[in-house]
Amino acid sequence: MPERWIAVDWGTSNLRAWAMGPAGVVAQAESDKGMGKLAPDQFEAALLDLVAPWLESRSLVLACGMVGARQGWVEAQYRAVPCTPTDPAGLTRVPTQDARLDVRIAPGLSQDRPADVMRGEETQLAGALALHPGFDGVFCLPGTHAKWAQVSAGEVVSFQTFMTGELFALLSTQSVLRHSMGGAGWDDAAFDEGLSEALSRPDRIAARLFSLRAEALLHGLGAPQARARLSGLLIGIELAGAKPYWLGQKVKLIGAEGLAASYARALGSQGLQADRLDATACTLAGLSALHAKLKVSP
Amino acid sequence: MPERWIAVDWGTSNLRAWAMGPAGVVAQAESDKGMGKLAPDQFEAALLDLVAPWLESRSLVLACGMVGARQGWVEAQYRAVPCTPTDPAGLTRVPTQDARLDVRIAPGLSQDRPADVMRGEETQLAGALALHPGFDGVFCLPGTHAKWAQVSAGEVVSFQTFMTGELFALLSTQSVLRHSMGGAGWDDAAFDEGLSEALSRPDRIAARLFSLRAEALLHGLGAPQARARLSGLLIGIELAGAKPYWLGQKVKLIGAEGLAASYARALGSQGLQADRLDATACTLAGLSALHAKLKVSP
Repeated sequence: MPERWIAVDWGTSNLRAWAMGPAGVVAQAESDKGMGKLAPDQFEAALLDLVAPWLESRSLVLACGMVGARQGWVEAQYRAVPCTPTDPAGLTRVPTQDARLDVRIAPGLSQDRPADVMRGEETQLAGALALHPGFDGVFCLPGTHAKWAQVSAGEVVSFQTFMTGELFALLSTQSVLRHSMGGAGWDDAAFDEGLSEALSRPDRIAARLFSLRAEALLHGLGAPQARARLSGLLIGIELAGAKPYWLGQKVKLIGAEGLAASYARALGSQGLQADRLDATACTLAGLSALHAKLKVSP
Repeated sequence: MPERWIAVDWGTSNLRAWAMGPAGVVAQAESDKGMGKLAPDQFEAALLDLVAPWLESRSLVLACGMVGARQGWVEAQYRAVPCTPTDPAGLTRVPTQDARLDVRIAPGLSQDRPADVMRGEETQLAGALALHPGFDGVFCLPGTHAKWAQVSAGEVVSFQTFMTGELFALLSTQSVLRHSMGGAGWDDAAFDEGLSEALSRPDRIAARLFSLRAEALLHGLGAPQARARLSGLLIGIELAGAKPYWLGQKVKLIGAEGLAASYARALGSQGLQADRLDATACTLAGLSALHAKLKVSP
């Protein structure tokens, strides 16, 4: 097992790489060459753009995320839950032109019924378990496609995805609501209102969404209030649907600072104190745990 | 009151005009110059492109729809419910360069609490009442922003808007679900499934949406099935929220053929037989009723 290797988090929108040594991160680099912008034959060059300065005669690259999707570099077949979040035996090798690269992609997880998939979050879950050994409970990973995962005895037992982040992006920038949400700013009280409306009456969500526009036209609802209430409505409808995951459970949040804070506030309103873990730290811990278990074949 | 006049339905995406005579429609024309594509100083030319051949020394033009929005030609202030759907006294005159034009815009309706607005549908409601005098009950107008309106004694008592059509457009063409929905085709059973899921568990909507993608990836859910189930989910969450409007009520649907058929099917599954009215016929009947009541000032 080489002591120097390269960790890669390759999502739909971005590519991030870290040069790793025995003591952890040695260097890092990132670009906007996410999976969504690349054809299969463009991945190697996008990777070399970032990691070429770090390469030795043969460098192990461990990558996770959408790079392993069907539309990615090479498809890494899902592993089906219940199972450990990652497994060195599940890595998919990627043929490369440059002989210095030894690239392996961590597969995502799938669930048969209800049908669900994740790619990238499994590595964060592995990292969270490496950082909190023996944790049994629930992880919530807010984002474009927010995930809730039940973990027990080191295995992912079940999980469920909510389109919360993507709905927020589409509604706030592409729909009629965009006219009422320009600029920055935030309003906690408006967030709480939206949250409470959606949790108490999830059936009214499609009407509540349009009411943001009508409130702006008729009653001068401000952009920060409209945006925060939209966020509250969407996180509220997620929490309503995810109730079996969080009710009476220990919950750890893995996500970006601001969004995780909103989820923590939302869960707090339901009487639940959620721990917060840094998403990048979890990704790196997950890839490092995978590296530590990997017996590199010649 | 002139016997020859021009009826105009001017929405966000399209412009439609009809030359009207004593016996009804004499000629018609349409273009894609909807409100959303025009600056205020471009409306007159867009109208003349269609109606110039019909103009006399002074021609009355009655227009409804988004042309009267704040971003339209001239803002026509909302009338607040409860009120009749249209009122000749509420028409807004538009100054024009071409002296042959006498343009008047029908205002939309607003509701204070819960805040809501409509523009264009009020004219369809007036037309539906002209075609079915004395009707007391509920109108459902499916579309980008679907409306439910309670009508009694010739007045709109209350109404509510659902973003159903816009959500369908965004999710099926802009979100991750678009990968699973290309092409044409439809599946009634999948529609019924989505409808039933959303009606029985509206709180799970954000998870059900993502499951369409997961079902396509894992179990080969076909595009016609995915699209029909998405439609069922979104109409289902609308019906869940609109239940106070339709439960135990007489309902008339005003909308485009295919979409109105889906709503009729959905309401039928809940034991409710809804009448269907043609949307264009209602618009023309509404503008004609307005014309009949109008005392043209010199």
